[in-house]
Amino acid sequence: MSLIIVGTVAFDSIETPYGKADRVVGGAALYGSIAASHFTDGVELVSIIGGDFPQEELAYMVSRGIDLAGLDIKKDKKSFYWSGKYHDNMNARDTLITELNVLAEFDPVLPSHYKDADYVMLGNLQPEVQMKVIEQMEKRPKLIILDTMNFWMDVAMDSLKKVIGKIDVLTINDEEARQLSGEYSLVKAANKILEMGPTYLIVKKGEHGALLFHEDKIFSAPALPLAEVFDPTGAGDTFAGGFAGYLAMTDDISFENLKRAIIYGSAMASFCVEDFSIGKLRTLNEEMVNERLQQFVELASFDVKAVETV
Amino acid sequence: MSLIIVGTVAFDSIETPYGKADRVVGGAALYGSIAASHFTDGVELVSIIGGDFPQEELAYMVSRGIDLAGLDIKKDKKSFYWSGKYHDNMNARDTLITELNVLAEFDPVLPSHYKDADYVMLGNLQPEVQMKVIEQMEKRPKLIILDTMNFWMDVAMDSLKKVIGKIDVLTINDEEARQLSGEYSLVKAANKILEMGPTYLIVKKGEHGALLFHEDKIFSAPALPLAEVFDPTGAGDTFAGGFAGYLAMTDDISFENLKRAIIYGSAMASFCVEDFSIGKLRTLNEEMVNERLQQFVELASFDVKAVETV
Repeated sequence: MSLIIVGTVAFDSIETPYGKADRVVGGAALYGSIAASHFTDGVELVSIIGGDFPQEELAYMVSRGIDLAGLDIKKDKKSFYWSGKYHDNMNARDTLITELNVLAEFDPVLPSHYKDADYVMLGNLQPEVQMKVIEQMEKRPKLIILDTMNFWMDVAMDSLKKVIGKIDVLTINDEEARQLSGEYSLVKAANKILEMGPTYLIVKKGEHGALLFHEDKIFSAPALPLAEVFDPTGAGDTFAGGFAGYLAMTDDISFENLKRAIIYGSAMASFCVEDFSIGKLRTLNEEMVNERLQQFVELASFDVKAVETV
Repeated sequence: MSLIIVGTVAFDSIETPYGKADRVVGGAALYGSIAASHFTDGVELVSIIGGDFPQEELAYMVSRGIDLAGLDIKKDKKSFYWSGKYHDNMNARDTLITELNVLAEFDPVLPSHYKDADYVMLGNLQPEVQMKVIEQMEKRPKLIILDTMNFWMDVAMDSLKKVIGKIDVLTINDEEARQLSGEYSLVKAANKILEMGPTYLIVKKGEHGALLFHEDKIFSAPALPLAEVFDPTGAGDTFAGGFAGYLAMTDDISFENLKRAIIYGSAMASFCVEDFSIGKLRTLNEEMVNERLQQFVELASFDVKAVETV
């Protein structure tokens, strides 16, 4: 099935304790669409770049079956640029430079053949921009997934709540779930957020995995403990792309299938962090993906029997 | 099978956002032995209390099949007392009062009928005290479990490493695993710690669950998200007691069975936090325990199939 992915395509300069990468390709929609492209050939990108973005990177995306009709290329301008430095423990980072460049004028226009897509992944952007995409759809998609962050809760809570009211799956981290709901307990936070509109809430907890909330059900997905996290940039976007791509491939939006989609997304994210940019994602093949899935199964599997307590 | 549990039996005064409890019974060995007593009637307590400790609480422990022969009662002295206040988010607490009282002279002497126990749970205590217990055993137990904390790493690392060299299962939290090993990555930390002696390492992550490391295998156990955490005091000790009690009941120290034991321990801990002191643990019956276990199964279960990536 077709899957629209909306978000940034950008340059990143990154420093981690393992090394430096200068002006490598990044952005939520780049990570997301490449991860999704491993599951479905229906990925339809919506983003904006400048004339400085390398032709060979665009060719690579096309080679992965990604439709670039919705990519707005401003030939005389520069692509969005972010530079950051991770702390020694990799759990915190400082932003050194943010140059919006073309992103400041991002006004997504869906090509007409995108407008009947069944799956839509709205990357972290200004809520009004996310809403514009939804409003252009000619029929209600089966599933709209939205990623956002604390920044929009600080500066645009009203617009954010409006767009959250229009979507099916919200992905945020635990602190953001608390901020959005005003509840510390994640169970209470989830209940409040599910009342705002979404059918599903995914709480991303980084190295602690993720929680999926739906009605009164909860699924706890593990994260694969890794000996080396080389560069965490893009892990959340790769997760979202793998998650959405798996759903678009299987075209099944049941709770059971969303659980699976979270595991597939987590597996893709676990590859992402093993190299800078999309270095590792470029090397993936079917065998590697399935071997990683098996590691998740082994990591989380247990059996219990009813016990006679004394 | 017999299970020795060594640790504190104490009074706690606790304040949480939900209320206050004044001089209620607590201590690692109290929580642990009551949790374990739901799985095995072979619990053998080793601890020290003053004459102020309520007779009816001792009678309750006896009614749960706990052997108190190793409980040293100093009639003219006072029991260990701890007072603390939790922050609004329950994830941090301030210690208000610590009165060691009888704990300052705790010199555990094992009754002779304890000395052939197959299972030993050493609660968080001075490493030299933990070592004294091991030295009194007449035969090497099948499994020695040791809990400790960052305080002993700060003030007694050498003694701690000596006792860690003598045990089979170490339970610490993620920050303590990092401190003990000098490695930030938990995978690398676990590898180093397993080289120090233990066959198994359990990394407790509170609301994020626990990780079990053994050889090159990892198991990620979920924590049950709860709408209300009434009082977290004793959750880790209840976990350890349930874990050890289940192992003593099943007498199986394979990786697969330790995974199960972690789930049973986690289920017991999830009850502990629902009331002050052992309030909730007192009310447990077989049906409640098995229902909670089923919640853990539903929380963590998923199935994945090998996918054809495109």
